[in-house]
Amino acid sequence: MAHPLSDAAAACAAPVRPTRSAIQGVAVTDVQLDADGFWGRRQAINSAATLEHCLQWMERLGWLENFDRVARGEAAPSRPGWQFSDSEVYKLLEAMAWDLARTPDAGLEATFDALVDRIGAAQDDDGYLNTAFGHPGRPPRWSDLAMGHELYNAGHLIQAGVARFRTGHDDRLVEIARRAADQICEEFGEGGLDAVCGHPEIEVALVESGRALGERRYLEQARLFIDRRGRGTLPVRPLLSAEYFQDDVPVREAAVLRGHAVRALYLTAGALDVAVETDDDELFDAVTRQWEHTVARRTYLTGGMGSRHQDEGFGDDWELPADRAYCETCAGVGSIMLAWRLYLATGEVRYADLIERTLFNVVATSPSADGTTFFYANPLQQREPGAPAGDGVNRRAEGGIRAPWFDVSCCPTNVARTLASLGSYVASVDTEGLALLQYAAGEVRAGGFVLRIDTAYPAEGIVRVHVVEAPDGVRRLRLRIPSWAPDASLRVGDGDPMPVEPGWADVTRRFAAGDRVVLELPTSPRFTWPDPRIDGVRDTVAVERGPLVLCLESTDLPDGISLDDVRAVTSSAPVAHGDGARLTATVDARETVDGAFPYGSRRPSATRTAPLDLALVPYHRWAERGPATMRVFLPVGE
Amino acid sequence: MAHPLSDAAAACAAPVRPTRSAIQGVAVTDVQLDADGFWGRRQAINSAATLEHCLQWMERLGWLENFDRVARGEAAPSRPGWQFSDSEVYKLLEAMAWDLARTPDAGLEATFDALVDRIGAAQDDDGYLNTAFGHPGRPPRWSDLAMGHELYNAGHLIQAGVARFRTGHDDRLVEIARRAADQICEEFGEGGLDAVCGHPEIEVALVESGRALGERRYLEQARLFIDRRGRGTLPVRPLLSAEYFQDDVPVREAAVLRGHAVRALYLTAGALDVAVETDDDELFDAVTRQWEHTVARRTYLTGGMGSRHQDEGFGDDWELPADRAYCETCAGVGSIMLAWRLYLATGEVRYADLIERTLFNVVATSPSADGTTFFYANPLQQREPGAPAGDGVNRRAEGGIRAPWFDVSCCPTNVARTLASLGSYVASVDTEGLALLQYAAGEVRAGGFVLRIDTAYPAEGIVRVHVVEAPDGVRRLRLRIPSWAPDASLRVGDGDPMPVEPGWADVTRRFAAGDRVVLELPTSPRFTWPDPRIDGVRDTVAVERGPLVLCLESTDLPDGISLDDVRAVTSSAPVAHGDGARLTATVDARETVDGAFPYGSRRPSATRTAPLDLALVPYHRWAERGPATMRVFLPVGE
Repeated sequence: MAHPLSDAAAACAAPVRPTRSAIQGVAVTDVQLDADGFWGRRQAINSAATLEHCLQWMERLGWLENFDRVARGEAAPSRPGWQFSDSEVYKLLEAMAWDLARTPDAGLEATFDALVDRIGAAQDDDGYLNTAFGHPGRPPRWSDLAMGHELYNAGHLIQAGVARFRTGHDDRLVEIARRAADQICEEFGEGGLDAVCGHPEIEVALVESGRALGERRYLEQARLFIDRRGRGTLPVRPLLSAEYFQDDVPVREAAVLRGHAVRALYLTAGALDVAVETDDDELFDAVTRQWEHTVARRTYLTGGMGSRHQDEGFGDDWELPADRAYCETCAGVGSIMLAWRLYLATGEVRYADLIERTLFNVVATSPSADGTTFFYANPLQQREPGAPAGDGVNRRAEGGIRAPWFDVSCCPTNVARTLASLGSYVASVDTEGLALLQYAAGEVRAGGFVLRIDTAYPAEGIVRVHVVEAPDGVRRLRLRIPSWAPDASLRVGDGDPMPVEPGWADVTRRFAAGDRVVLELPTSPRFTWPDPRIDGVRDTVAVERGPLVLCLESTDLPDGISLDDVRAVTSSAPVAHGDGARLTATVDARETVDGAFPYGSRRPSATRTAPLDLALVPYHRWAERGPATMRVFLPVGE
Repeated sequence: MAHPLSDAAAACAAPVRPTRSAIQGVAVTDVQLDADGFWGRRQAINSAATLEHCLQWMERLGWLENFDRVARGEAAPSRPGWQFSDSEVYKLLEAMAWDLARTPDAGLEATFDALVDRIGAAQDDDGYLNTAFGHPGRPPRWSDLAMGHELYNAGHLIQAGVARFRTGHDDRLVEIARRAADQICEEFGEGGLDAVCGHPEIEVALVESGRALGERRYLEQARLFIDRRGRGTLPVRPLLSAEYFQDDVPVREAAVLRGHAVRALYLTAGALDVAVETDDDELFDAVTRQWEHTVARRTYLTGGMGSRHQDEGFGDDWELPADRAYCETCAGVGSIMLAWRLYLATGEVRYADLIERTLFNVVATSPSADGTTFFYANPLQQREPGAPAGDGVNRRAEGGIRAPWFDVSCCPTNVARTLASLGSYVASVDTEGLALLQYAAGEVRAGGFVLRIDTAYPAEGIVRVHVVEAPDGVRRLRLRIPSWAPDASLRVGDGDPMPVEPGWADVTRRFAAGDRVVLELPTSPRFTWPDPRIDGVRDTVAVERGPLVLCLESTDLPDGISLDDVRAVTSSAPVAHGDGARLTATVDARETVDGAFPYGSRRPSATRTAPLDLALVPYHRWAERGPATMRVFLPVGE
């Protein structure tokens, strides 16, 4: 059963669509990315390879069979997969739903339907749907709220339902998701179970489903979950503190993101949704405050969040070591979720800036060029070359090499749904016109505009915007000038290039087909310096180029030189080289203090080689040429 | 049943006593430390407070009742405590056994006997003894070798038996331990279960028990366990890799310590024992090589080992961040176990040097002054003041504040047994005479000498050695000159002070009662510089004084100054102040690159205050005055 895509419905084909926001992201169907552009290529590979890759792994590991067994009523004491493996299936469905809207494909449609049927067959009569709990041989429903992930799983199911509905279908998946959401509201509503899930996700899902389906009680249920959190209702366990679950402090009282990074980001995104929909300024301000503090003191240059391996958590302020940076890919996705909601609510450019940083340096870093292996952790320094990942399940979420699948395999499907819905983040519309937020070659149709974007961004900084169709009347076309681009210029039509400052460059006029706007962003490589309070990278420098963080890989070092001994020469600027840069560096003759113990009474001094040129590559490409050591931050030589 | 302490038996009252070594540590009963000296005070507090503290906690938490329930044959599906809680009881017994030998006490003897009775009542007829496995309601014996800790527990039981036997008793505990060891040899001997324990400990225990009781087959069993390791027999799990268990590479092939630090150190200590007892040069060299690499590249200034919280493990080379230094107290104990065995086998001073460093800066750091709260992790930087620990069980092994007990509470009893047997590490004897290894006020009787040691070490550097009784003939009295003491001097009798170099200072002569030797070690505070390859402390400096690492606590900062902004001025040397130092420092006016994002295009520069003096305290005392931020390594200002 499909609901016809009316104009209004088409405008809804976006993952996030606040009912009270003046700004809306464009629909995924409104953006057609060129297949040879940076993001278009990734989206095409996601479509052609990653979706099928994920499906095959989940079939192979029995994560799909889990649904069949529940449907057959079999007792399953030794069910394969973690208690959250259902969510991977749902994230894949969400990715497929966006992808089907973008590029209809009968084969994928059939695969999607068959998957939905298997899932639907496992749904209980009352709407409960979970393969790890509540059935013969399994623990009872809601018996492990802290780590059982039942509401988390349901959240991803509901989000898949939203994607399906928003892309023009009111069919079986939507119904399954609706029944699951209804059952949760029955169970956890006012007067019901006064509890929250150890892993947030249900909150964003219920708000979005409420928005999509017009179900106010879903929003109300999300509000309850947000309000209940931070009151210590989740049982803590060794190594799983209240902070880990963000159950230590109510969301509206917290000062900063803390604990498990993905949990913190998903929760805060949901809190922002609730704040927006209920006009809750206090909650809104609390989220803004936490985001600001987190970005100012707990975020990596790549946009990566969560420095600790233990707990997969945020560290203290300034605790941002390059080598043990966890920076889980899913935390990057979560950061984009949060920043996107903040952007839609405020129209502030800083949120779109962070989204760009995170997209290019976390999300784009995870998948390999062929879309079938992934980084789970995204450290900014690799001390030992990773061992080849092999083609089995990777038991550790680290290791300096992309792996096809993980024991906890949240990242591949999270990347897949993000890439499939990426179009929505490219531009936004409001009553004044259209804003271009992320620069990618392709076509954008929204707000009455049809814009053709020609650009080799980020390899080059020129973005040509051609107006193919224009809306009536005076409209504003605004372009985001990234915070890293102080020397940008904008040329409107045949006019002269005019300097534009970071922030927004607005062109407000009566547009007509044939109009052209050309933005030129500086993409010379540049040095970037860390705050001296970040101990882990004291006295180092990084090189960025446009939105890309660059890195030095051992692959690009002359024989016999250790990456540990390379020192950046900062008196001469790095120069563009391919899609990376060349940097002048010296190499320290081994500066050991004492061969036996690495601390001594003499201040280390170095004998340095004559300057040599070294090639830096975009961080998102690292380890593509095989295991290597790698650094984003290089110690400063002079 | 006591066996009379013959001279030979008395000389055996030491935790480690190789049968083939020319060098032996002195007996714990041969050393009487002054109650007002640095170590004597800690030993007295351990005796007066810590032993009882540990006993009460284990009673309160049901860890002792576990034995009673097994004795009563009760099914215990919900047994309190981790699967290794039995080992805490055994470590406490070991501590009590050493302590009883040192300072006989009828009350403690009765407590000890009662505890042994409770434990003995839980032993199976065939010698198996474990409260977590092998009884009604519990999993079967040896059903989880990777994480069940059965052999680990047994190892600590056997070590307690060794302590009891070596201190002149052949009584019930010795018999219990012997039966447990026999059962293990039956089960795991040649032709038996071809397996190892996930947590090494049984290896050192079997060797030492074999040495004490003259049971060659215990040694043989230990050799089997060492040889079997590194062949991937332990099932790996997510986050528990073969490396975690040191089951990735055979001990004799490994290049460096890796994986879980305590496991690695205990295993390697056992391997060294086996190498020594079986004349296995290849294994001996492998252990030496691993120790050297580990000390040169994976060890903290404090002697702490194991930088990672996740896995409680060693990091890669140079991965030694100050803030997230795990440096588990038990890893310090394990490092001393290994270094002590290497010293006894070689007589090389470097091993005794590392023991001193680790004793003063890890072992002494863990317990509070009153011996009832403990550090589990020993980071070298604290970014946020710890929350007061309260009087309950601490669920996390970190937090910048000492806690009375932990969910995994291995450290308090490990500190207790180390302090109770500390005397043994103070001196060693060989055919040539006696070596003083650690300087502590008190009396040492060994090798025919009775020496009275007067010293306020480490607060002062003068060590006066009075010969109270002397052996016949020409003997060598050797004093360790620490590697940090290049300007030491030694005065023999009424002679002039003569400069002595780090290493050994030997006085070889016919000694007589009344002879005096005075060692003067320089204890002016000194700067210590880290190898530049340790990224986590680049461009910083530490201050040491004698064997003590010092630190700066926020408690000692003027109001309004953040520890993050303090910069050490290294052009003027730190000066002695109390038992710490005073250091010249400046304070940076906040060097933010950009208030919103901690990376920017301008190289940070600082406006610095006029120099001010700041007090540094010994690291082992940190957080004694309440929660604080703290740094061992200070960024260099000029």
